[in-house]
Amino acid sequence: MGKVYVIGLGPGAEKEMTYQASTALEKSEVIIGYTVYTGLIRERFPDKKYLSTPMRQEVVRCEMAMDEAMKGRTVAMVCSGDAGIYGMAGLLYEMGQGYPEVELEVVPGITAANGGAAVLGAPLMHDFAVISLSDLLTPWEKIEKRIRGAAMADFVICLYNPSSRKRADYLKKACEYILEYQSPDTVCGYVRNIGREGEDAHILTLSELKDTEVDMFTTVYIGNSQTRNVDGKMVTPRGYRLEE
Amino acid sequence: MGKVYVIGLGPGAEKEMTYQASTALEKSEVIIGYTVYTGLIRERFPDKKYLSTPMRQEVVRCEMAMDEAMKGRTVAMVCSGDAGIYGMAGLLYEMGQGYPEVELEVVPGITAANGGAAVLGAPLMHDFAVISLSDLLTPWEKIEKRIRGAAMADFVICLYNPSSRKRADYLKKACEYILEYQSPDTVCGYVRNIGREGEDAHILTLSELKDTEVDMFTTVYIGNSQTRNVDGKMVTPRGYRLEE
Repeated sequence: MGKVYVIGLGPGAEKEMTYQASTALEKSEVIIGYTVYTGLIRERFPDKKYLSTPMRQEVVRCEMAMDEAMKGRTVAMVCSGDAGIYGMAGLLYEMGQGYPEVELEVVPGITAANGGAAVLGAPLMHDFAVISLSDLLTPWEKIEKRIRGAAMADFVICLYNPSSRKRADYLKKACEYILEYQSPDTVCGYVRNIGREGEDAHILTLSELKDTEVDMFTTVYIGNSQTRNVDGKMVTPRGYRLEE
Repeated sequence: MGKVYVIGLGPGAEKEMTYQASTALEKSEVIIGYTVYTGLIRERFPDKKYLSTPMRQEVVRCEMAMDEAMKGRTVAMVCSGDAGIYGMAGLLYEMGQGYPEVELEVVPGITAANGGAAVLGAPLMHDFAVISLSDLLTPWEKIEKRIRGAAMADFVICLYNPSSRKRADYLKKACEYILEYQSPDTVCGYVRNIGREGEDAHILTLSELKDTEVDMFTTVYIGNSQTRNVDGKMVTPRGYRLEE
């Protein structure tokens, strides 16, 4: 009986990988993923069969994993971050209905929200909302509703996919919605290339963020009403009463 | 110059620990944390000075870390999950203002939201909100507003601290708020003892969850309008248009 591990390698792969991920890779005969991620682990696990597909061919990649597992093999499907957060885990479970013999196991990883937060300081110490600004599979009205809902309820907000060539002004729009509920001085931050070469972090106000251009390798944080800039770190207090 | 690493060990400690956490522990001379967490790593890192305090003495523990660092030592402050998510990182940065010579570094870990999601299937594949039901430091009205905001905007919701002896009915109240916006058939799940002995996961409907008692070692997930029960796994599709 074949098995597919769906493994998140963490934002920068390698150093944020967990022991559990390492053990699952060790057990696997076939490792499937984008070349950029498999390249990072090939050195540590040289004696495996490596398979990959071009970007965006996610259904093909899942079929590849299922086909290998149907041959009785143990397969690792690897991705950056956590496979369970905007990753491949959901698609595999849905496709898995067609392959009832194949066992699936998700091995969690450090997602960008957590990895970037550690770089900025401690922005996610209180309730937070994670929102992707990609409207490839989600209508923009739904995204707008979520941004407004989160800002209105004073969540710390973490934005994935804040930009791309086709939607250069999405972050600006998101900030404009949030500015209807939160102060222009709200402490914000962003991190580019989390855990990778060229890692780059900035802390700024919400009104400054509105006019900042970021790329698709960036994760953005908007503080809640209590978030402060503590000596250049973005810090959200754990509670409210202590501050009053 | 001393340094304090704030290290998240993941929900079950040990196996979800990252290489980065392991490297930081290796570099540390002093390791501080609750006995239950230091016990899990003592075997791997036997030649360290271990310090601990009783539960809830968080300020004392932070002072302990700063004092050791002021002596020029490298200190690891360990906790379960991610120190940056409802953890010790924020308090350390705030206290760090009194110790400008001490360098702080947060080493991210797998937080319960991610660890429990992997056990349930793939509930966090789309935008999600993380909310703690603990009203120790947050007024309940604020928590209620967040639950309503998240439910209204169709976020997947992940609840930390869903119960305690003093607030046995908080999860019921939370479900009642959510039921004003979401169907009673909304797919929900909960996981007890994530990554530990006795790990225990359940999938059920929102109306069933309302009448379920959970303990403080449990993390609860409420699906969005698209979340489905796929062969006993809780799966949120990655997008909307595909489903329509």
